[in-house]
Parts: sequence; C-alpha cells; structure tokens
Amino acid sequence: MSGSHPPAIPAAAYAERLVAARRALRERGAGALLVGPGPDLRWLAGYDAMALERLTLLVVPGDEEPAILVPRLEIARARLAPALEAGLVRLVPWDETDDPIGLVPGLLGRAGAAPGHGPGAGRGGRLLVSDRLWAAFVLPLQATLSGARFGLASEALRDLRAVKDADEIALLRAAAHAADRVVAGVAHGPLVGRTEIDVAREVRERLVAEGHQSAGFAIVGSGPNSASPHHAPSDRRITEGEPIVLDIGGTIGGYGSDITRTLWIGGAGTAAGPTAEYLDLYGALQAAQAEATAAVGPGIACERIDAIARDAITAAGYGRFFVHRTGHGIGLEEHEAPYIVAGNTEALRPGHAFSVEPGIYIDGRFGARIEDIVVCGSGGPDVLNEAPRDLLIVDGR
Amino acid sequence: MSGSHPPAIPAAAYAERLVAARRALRERGAGALLVGPGPDLRWLAGYDAMALERLTLLVVPGDEEPAILVPRLEIARARLAPALEAGLVRLVPWDETDDPIGLVPGLLGRAGAAPGHGPGAGRGGRLLVSDRLWAAFVLPLQATLSGARFGLASEALRDLRAVKDADEIALLRAAAHAADRVVAGVAHGPLVGRTEIDVAREVRERLVAEGHQSAGFAIVGSGPNSASPHHAPSDRRITEGEPIVLDIGGTIGGYGSDITRTLWIGGAGTAAGPTAEYLDLYGALQAAQAEATAAVGPGIACERIDAIARDAITAAGYGRFFVHRTGHGIGLEEHEAPYIVAGNTEALRPGHAFSVEPGIYIDGRFGARIEDIVVCGSGGPDVLNEAPRDLLIVDGR
Repeated sequence: MSGSHPPAIPAAAYAERLVAARRALRERGAGALLVGPGPDLRWLAGYDAMALERLTLLVVPGDEEPAILVPRLEIARARLAPALEAGLVRLVPWDETDDPIGLVPGLLGRAGAAPGHGPGAGRGGRLLVSDRLWAAFVLPLQATLSGARFGLASEALRDLRAVKDADEIALLRAAAHAADRVVAGVAHGPLVGRTEIDVAREVRERLVAEGHQSAGFAIVGSGPNSASPHHAPSDRRITEGEPIVLDIGGTIGGYGSDITRTLWIGGAGTAAGPTAEYLDLYGALQAAQAEATAAVGPGIACERIDAIARDAITAAGYGRFFVHRTGHGIGLEEHEAPYIVAGNTEALRPGHAFSVEPGIYIDGRFGARIEDIVVCGSGGPDVLNEAPRDLLIVDGR
Repeated sequence: MSGSHPPAIPAAAYAERLVAARRALRERGAGALLVGPGPDLRWLAGYDAMALERLTLLVVPGDEEPAILVPRLEIARARLAPALEAGLVRLVPWDETDDPIGLVPGLLGRAGAAPGHGPGAGRGGRLLVSDRLWAAFVLPLQATLSGARFGLASEALRDLRAVKDADEIALLRAAAHAADRVVAGVAHGPLVGRTEIDVAREVRERLVAEGHQSAGFAIVGSGPNSASPHHAPSDRRITEGEPIVLDIGGTIGGYGSDITRTLWIGGAGTAAGPTAEYLDLYGALQAAQAEATAAVGPGIACERIDAIARDAITAAGYGRFFVHRTGHGIGLEEHEAPYIVAGNTEALRPGHAFSVEPGIYIDGRFGARIEDIVVCGSGGPDVLNEAPRDLLIVDGR
C-alpha cells in the first residue's frame, strides 16, 4: 500500500483554468458555461460533487464572476473545494424546498449576452452545458431558458482539459504505478480454478488498497473470453493452458489509471505453456504496441499513432482481428480527448495523455491486448506504466 | 467475507418490465423510450453498460419490438444481458466509424407515432430520454429528431421502478447486511489518531471485501465535521472524546446499501466518554428514527414519515438542527423515488424501499445521524439493516 499523499492541484491552477474557460467562451460567442457534477466541474473548481438528484451547478458567464448552486446540506463540503476556498467562485446555497433550476437565470445576468452586443442567453444567446449533465437537468434548463440555444461545454473545454500540467501528470503517474502493482499482485497469486468474477473482486480490493479512491473497473477475460475486448467478468473458471486479458483501473485524486496486461496460465515449456500460435500473435502485438508508443511526440497526428499500430499488426497477418481504435485520452475521465483513432488529424501536443492499447481478438478462441498510459513529452513519449509488457507466463497455483 | 452469490433477476422479470414500460408509454401518449447507460437500462434489460463516450442506447417504442444500439466491441458483453440473451431486445451493433445518433430514427419506425394516430416521433411526437442520459447525447438526439418533443423517462418508469419485487428486495437485503458488517468492522478497529481519509479508505476496502461490486461512498465526519451532513473525509485526525458519523454504501448486483451509524470515541464512564449533552441529543434522535420507522406501512403518505421524525426531534428541542428530509428511495440508484420529504403526499406501497435517516447537526460542534434501509411490507416495516442503533461507544485503540 502506498502511504504517500497524491499531489494536489493548487488553487492558482483553478484561477488560470477559469480565466482560460471564460476566454474560450468569449471566443466562441457563447454566454456561459453550465457545469454539473463530473469531470468539467472537477477541472474548473476542484469540486468532486456528488452526482445525485439535488442539483449542483457551476455557472461561468463569459463576463461576470462564476457562481455555483449547491444544495444547502452540501455547502460545508463544497466550501472545501479549492476554487471556492480561494474565493474564485461564489457559493449560492439552495434549500430543500427551493426550485434550483429557477435560480439559474438570475446567475447569468447580462453575462448571457454575446460579447459586447446581442441578446442575453435567456433571449437567444448560447449556453454550453457540461457533456455529462443529466437529461433530468438539461430538459428543465431548456424549458426555463427557452430563448437560449444549447451547446456542449466540450466545445470550450475539450482542448484545455486535454493538455495536462505537471501536477496532473504526477497524479496520472501515481495512479499508473498503483495499477502496475495491482497487476503484479494478481499475476503472482493463485488463479487456476477461480472464477473471473472472483479475480475481478481481488482486482477491486487491490486497487483500493493501493490508494485508488474508486475501484473503477476490472475486465478479466479468460480463455475464449479474452477475445471480447470489453468482456464482463463471468462465472467461468480459469484453467491451465489459456490466456487472461486483465484490463483494470481506478482513480487517484480524480485522475485515472488504465492498464492492460495479458497473462498465460501454465509454465513455459510445460504441456500447458503458451502455444506457438499464441506466441506468434502476442509477439506481433507487442512489437506493434512498442512501435506506436515510440512514435509519440509533438506534432504527430493522433491518427498516425493508430496507423503505426494497425499497419504493424496487419503486416503480421492479424489486421482484421484488431477491431478497435488504438487509444483514448485519459485524465479526469476514463476516456477523453485526444482519441488515437483513424480520421483524427489532431497533432499531439506536450501534455497530451492517452492510452496506447492495440489488441488482437480471434472470436471464440483467444485474444490479447497490451495497454500503457503515455504522455506526450516535448522530446517523445513518457510512458507512465512500468509493468513489464512481455506475456506474463505464470503457473497460477 | 460473504462467499455466497447474490440472487439474480430472472429473464421473465425483464419481459414483464418491458411490457409494463411500453404500456406506460402508450398511456402517456409518448412514442418511445431512449435509454442510455444507467439505472433505467439496468432495470429494463439487465444491462450494466459502461457509461462512456461510445453511445449505448436502448430504444423502446410503444408499439414495436425494442432494440439496443451497442458499440461493436461491446456486443459480446451486451449479449450476456438477460433481456438480450432471452431475445427480448434486438441487438444493433455500430462500428467505430459510424454515427450512432444517425441510426436512432430508423429504430423508431412508425413506433414514434402516438397510439393509433398522430405524427411520428420525428415529426412532432414525444420521446422520453433516460433521466441520466448525458447532454453529450441529448443535444445530438434533439438535433437529429428535431420535430420531436423530449421528456424524461422517469415519467413512465418512476413508479414502476419504485416498487421492488422479491428478488430486488433480496439484493437490497444482501447489500444491507454486507454494509452492517463493514460498520461493525470499522467500529471495532483502531480509530484514534487516524485521519478521516484513512478510515474512508478502510471503509471502501471493507465494502469490496464484503461483496460490494462498487466501493460507493464513505462519509466519515469526526468531531465538528459530524455536523456536516455530507462531509467529505479530510485530513483531520480522530481523537478521544468526540463522535464520528459514518455513512457508507456501495452496490451488490446493482442494488445499493446505505447505512449511517454514529460512534463515540472514548469509553463510557471515562473522562472521554459521551457528554450528557450529546447523550440527550442522541437519545432524541434514536427515538425519532424508531418512531418514524415503526410508522411505515401501506397507505401511509411519505410526508407523514418525515413529519413523525421531525415532530419528535422538534419536541425534544432540536427541530432547527434537522436540516434535511428524512429519507430517499433506494434501488438501482442511491437516491430515487419515493422521497420521504415534506410535500410528498404519495402513499407508500408494499415494495417501496427507502432510507429513514433523521439527523441533528449543531454547526461547529457536533452532529449525529441514524440511517436504515426500510422496505414497506404489507403489514408494516421490514428493516433491512440489523446493526445496533445505539450510540456505538468504542475506545478506538
């Protein structure tokens, strides 16, 4: 267990983010951001609000001070959020019998107006709601602000959030190392005869014990289930002479870990050891993952990283078995920009953090995947995970 | 650790739920339900889909068979969902380069029409989206189905989901008992000198070890922090001679646990034992919680349960310190219908499951809360939690 504290994001970072978000709003001619619980709220204010039926909503007008609606019984908790503690955001409590949606127009003020001219947000302006805001809040906001046009906050925040600063990278690294330790722990314990569900439970226990605040997810695909990229752990019992794809992650300080390693159950050189066919497949995958990772650097298009992995796997004869994109950005969301996928011409920038995770899946038989979290550094890739990428051949007893 | 399997919801239940949902749709003159990942999808189809950027959407027309859009790399997982395995819902995979939103109108067909007459949903009909559907999907659906009016799925599903059947109650009971064991484990271990954050981590570890699939939440409010109902665990170190409010929960088979117990650190009768003032407060709270629980039964209005707890606390002189409603429904959501709150005249029905959790909070000094999950039985309350409700006086060493 890691006893050390994860690094914290300082209040000054939130001040800069709010300034950048308001600038992005004005550049897009939008009047205000309306941000519910979730990654946008955490990024803008450091507030990890509970996503429940009582509305929490950060209102960031382009030209006025931000305010946040908070249910009264959560104000003590909200006040501890760095942006509130530093006085960057005004707290507006609402009571159990209030209609919080009805309070929103009053927080937009003239700030709903397009920059310098034009109608207010309530009268034809544009409002950007956080991408994860629930329909249960979106529809009432649309009814109350019926003159406004609604867009998504990602329009203004996506590129800002995609570039991680040093503190964010430190959190991602802490999470990656914790996940590395979980993989090592699971791989070196008994596996034969256990169900996938039981192993998934061990993964969740270890994720928390290693310092994750959320146990996140645990894909445990054994034998033929290793050919289902997003397999849900089942009652299937693990046996010798088969692979397991282990794809796990959680969050530390809000930032995600996400690692995939492939195990083979059965000692090398024994009857249960990996077959030549599987070793060929795994070798092709490992080379492709390494090549794609090595290509990471500023100015490289996201789709280029995908193409490198895909071309290598295709050249080895497995192209049609690589059925998903090569990776996804990671940060306060498990999946976020930039996406490492065909068609994404966006150039990598220093601070972009994303997975490089090619896989090969032969339906009904077996599959394999290798996944690391990689940060684009100024001089090339900074690979956060340190767990060995070789096929993990274990006896599982 | 519980080694036993939680009970499963049989496929027949999903068939009945889909029939009931379609009936509710038709009764409300709505054309279809559009249900993303979350509790509504789990209730209708048994599918615990990942809530990510790739759209998963169950489309339930009032007068045609349901279909579900699933990203191709998740189809193996989706097929295992009971409603899909039983052939109740047609699987419609989409590929990495498809626009899934563009596929939705084709799944509505004529089913978007109001029953028997009227325009299709794409041409003026009404569509109900799941309450937790992200804005990132709501806004594109509105743009694509620009002739439709949008409402919330809770309009059709709320009352159906609020009444739990025997299998659902069994899952709630399993979760409640697991949470009971976590409280006992934490209460009997060392606490003095530890931070709230460290105790919260122990809670999450124990929740998972006791069989919860998600570690859920852990409110650990010590000393003056016990007066903040939704306190976020902090670096504050626990000392002798003060209370801790412990409010914890997770999910088993999708169904939530949620229990609150209040501890006092320091042996009774010693200098660090509970003060007369605190014992008076706690005694009033315990009596109020017991009285409100005992009043649960079919036909009793939700607001009546709230009033019983509130009146008892007010009579003891603490009325102004009970700052929140008495309870919330629980099931596939932590908070759902029915809400035990002033103004809710809805009558309790057998199968309603909810918390009874009055609290008394004296700002800056201390607070206390007692919470059980209670099911309305045909003859009265069925209290799922079995942990003792007395003030848990522990030495914490």
